[in-house]
Amino acid sequence: MTPMARLPRAEEKADAVQVDLNATIGDTIRVEALQHDEAVLPYVSSITIPAGLHAGTPRVILAAIRRGLAAGVRLGAGVGYRDFLGGGDRYVDVAFEDLYAELIYQIGAVDSLAFTEQGRLSYVRPSGALARMAGRRKDHAEAILRAIASYDPELPLVVHHLSPLLGMARDAGLEVIVEYSASSLERMRASVGRIAADGHPEQSVSLHLDPVTAPVVVRTLRELGHTFGAPLTARRGM
Amino acid sequence: MTPMARLPRAEEKADAVQVDLNATIGDTIRVEALQHDEAVLPYVSSITIPAGLHAGTPRVILAAIRRGLAAGVRLGAGVGYRDFLGGGDRYVDVAFEDLYAELIYQIGAVDSLAFTEQGRLSYVRPSGALARMAGRRKDHAEAILRAIASYDPELPLVVHHLSPLLGMARDAGLEVIVEYSASSLERMRASVGRIAADGHPEQSVSLHLDPVTAPVVVRTLRELGHTFGAPLTARRGM
Amino acid sequence: MTPMARLPRAEEKADAVQVDLNATIGDTIRVEALQHDEAVLPYVSSITIPAGLHAGTPRVILAAIRRGLAAGVRLGAGVGYRDFLGGGDRYVDVAFEDLYAELIYQIGAVDSLAFTEQGRLSYVRPSGALARMAGRRKDHAEAILRAIASYDPELPLVVHHLSPLLGMARDAGLEVIVEYSASSLERMRASVGRIAADGHPEQSVSLHLDPVTAPVVVRTLRELGHTFGAPLTARRGM
Amino acid sequence: MTPMARLPRAEEKADAVQVDLNATIGDTIRVEALQHDEAVLPYVSSITIPAGLHAGTPRVILAAIRRGLAAGVRLGAGVGYRDFLGGGDRYVDVAFEDLYAELIYQIGAVDSLAFTEQGRLSYVRPSGALARMAGRRKDHAEAILRAIASYDPELPLVVHHLSPLLGMARDAGLEVIVEYSASSLERMRASVGRIAADGHPEQSVSLHLDPVTAPVVVRTLRELGHTFGAPLTARRGM
Repeated sequence: MTPMARLPRAEEKADAVQVDLNATIGDTIRVEALQHDEAVLPYVSSITIPAGLHAGTPRVILAAIRRGLAAGVRLGAGVGYRDFLGGGDRYVDVAFEDLYAELIYQIGAVDSLAFTEQGRLSYVRPSGALARMAGRRKDHAEAILRAIASYDPELPLVVHHLSPLLGMARDAGLEVIVEYSASSLERMRASVGRIAADGHPEQSVSLHLDPVTAPVVVRTLRELGHTFGAPLTARRGM
Repeated sequence: MTPMARLPRAEEKADAVQVDLNATIGDTIRVEALQHDEAVLPYVSSITIPAGLHAGTPRVILAAIRRGLAAGVRLGAGVGYRDFLGGGDRYVDVAFEDLYAELIYQIGAVDSLAFTEQGRLSYVRPSGALARMAGRRKDHAEAILRAIASYDPELPLVVHHLSPLLGMARDAGLEVIVEYSASSLERMRASVGRIAADGHPEQSVSLHLDPVTAPVVVRTLRELGHTFGAPLTARRGM
Repeated sequence: MTPMARLPRAEEKADAVQVDLNATIGDTIRVEALQHDEAVLPYVSSITIPAGLHAGTPRVILAAIRRGLAAGVRLGAGVGYRDFLGGGDRYVDVAFEDLYAELIYQIGAVDSLAFTEQGRLSYVRPSGALARMAGRRKDHAEAILRAIASYDPELPLVVHHLSPLLGMARDAGLEVIVEYSASSLERMRASVGRIAADGHPEQSVSLHLDPVTAPVVVRTLRELGHTFGAPLTARRGM
Repeated sequence: MTPMARLPRAEEKADAVQVDLNATIGDTIRVEALQHDEAVLPYVSSITIPAGLHAGTPRVILAAIRRGLAAGVRLGAGVGYRDFLGGGDRYVDVAFEDLYAELIYQIGAVDSLAFTEQGRLSYVRPSGALARMAGRRKDHAEAILRAIASYDPELPLVVHHLSPLLGMARDAGLEVIVEYSASSLERMRASVGRIAADGHPEQSVSLHLDPVTAPVVVRTLRELGHTFGAPLTARRGM
């Protein structure tokens, strides 16, 4: 564990934090549109791939997996409410039994596609409204936790640092990756400060990038002396 | 190998054939409708569960898996064209790349749901238009073969005895289960004769039942001295 | 206006109420399944046809329209949240702009199909979660009212007698048909009593039947001296 | 009728052809993406709006209608096979009864949305695979013709000049707009020559633009002395 006391300067590299840098790739139904997402690959250590019920198609998922593996980054499944036209951004009053099964369905499908390319999922990340509603819909949070526990209890769950899901996941004994936003320079700076204050073990921190601002955010992170990449152990193919 | 010479009578049980009896369960979007399908469980040794792109929902799939495992039957994934409103019965001019990814997506999703219930898939069965078009769309047949080979080359493929896919699958080195229709008494009798004439190894033959006629068909099969059930080795959970 | 003082007996036919009897037809994706719904046609004066976003397909809608017109009943569009797999029974946190457009889309599509068969819609009925949420989501209620006002301000809206939407619709100057449940004999009896107590103009009352119990409910209604059918003026084709 | 003898020069304006300039707008599921399409509005006299079964959502359709009406262009419904993920570019072996109902559903829905904005559809344009398959699937061609005839026999049908649908539509007595591609300068030049050779009445010719190349294509058309815009009489709201 390497708690971080403050936003470090270049000469204090011992205090620098090693974090995962993440972006979402494949939020589209046209495989051609993936080329826009590819530009972010040099800046990340992991990519979240929408699993097909709120965004993404099997072909797009497979293409994203191939590009991610070629770039040497880890792969995660972005899971959401079954609402393609809403892009996962709308709350759906789904029953626990439906959501639980839909989550395993999504995770298993993406993991299987990764497996056929000699990869595996390294984490699961609830996205959009599903992530936001976990605090208010305890059964939806429970569906997330139980789906992962059923599928693979060592598969880490990505949770925003302010989400009530964080404590629930830790209580359930799941591996957790704590996410902070780095969608802009300002947010990144605030997040780096918070990471230091929160004092996480370094292996479990992820900064979520916006593809558009990723280059400047990552360059600034490097200038500040932070390192990143490969903080999480990738799961191996069976 | 036990080739069958003719339609056997009760006193000639040595010639009787041991076949898999299969029916499709879960071809619905309402979990309540599964209760109609359940009645066929005592008559089958395996159930084919639509994988969610042409019929079935994750919740229905999971419910069918649970009932199948409780009944001690083997589980198969029914895969099809992505066409929910058409129920998989309409040909869709899908590209190889889409179909290949969609097949792994379906197989992996159902296998994952089975895995969380301590089961696994025992076979894959193309259904509806996808099964019928394999002869004319070589790339669609190729997508089926390659999807299974990529996911698990030991996972058997169910193919109708007249389908051109049969030879292609054997040439590709895949495990094959040869299917004959037993949707009516007449069809069952004709199929039993054909099975004898075709001379398959007994482990690889499946009779496909219609839930409505299954009771009388199976009773007649028993009266003729045939045995069935468990001809195929179930895959174990990881 | 004929307010009803109490549950009338046969000798008091002057007090009997003339109500619309309604059932939903076409809540399926398979046109063959419509035959189950047809049995209710002799018992109703209007049918509500799901408009395709929460249930129904264009072919099923058209088939239901044809049967309804052949039976001489009025036609209504059952509109709901865009959630086919949930059957319209799940709340979806849709934006006003989406819902408003989706409602006109549904109403216009069904009315157009009716028009090509020399019929027209006689009313719109929000169904499932959309009907239930109108009280809590004022913008969703507003979307319903504005969609009808934009499409045809004389097209009546069917609203449950306890729904907050009822007052809103009247305030907005829309034609309203007040619905009471008659899904069982007990509910029908309670509803008849309430209708009398509420004192509606008879043209604007509808009893909603369950297809399974409709025969006994309607026979009992007749024995009680009530008449029904054609209380509402059908809209003519353009 | 003004047959055109050859590609006209600026000084021969009497020979110049007045054609409709068309582009597709709203081929997206995100209303925000419409802003990319808007740039083509100054260059066209009509816009084709995907009707929601192969592309487009009710909200996107309504937004496109509003922009089209604000720009003073005519509105058309782009109809296609029900295949959202394939974008209408894949042949689907749909039955006549399904397709016929789906076409009226699409046309009626878009026309209704236009009507609520004081507009109306001016034409219907089959798109993608549906347009391409009309020659080989006579029943699909027939579904197109009969859907329009049932909905409004005066509603023009846009057909590519080489499509077998062209003769069928004329034989059926439908209004026809003959489309030529102008997706590039080269195609536009070839099309202008063909239009002259084919000798259409000028009211019934449309050049289909690609939004990316529309500015240069339209500028060149103007330099060549052609005029365009408003060649077709817009239908009025009811």
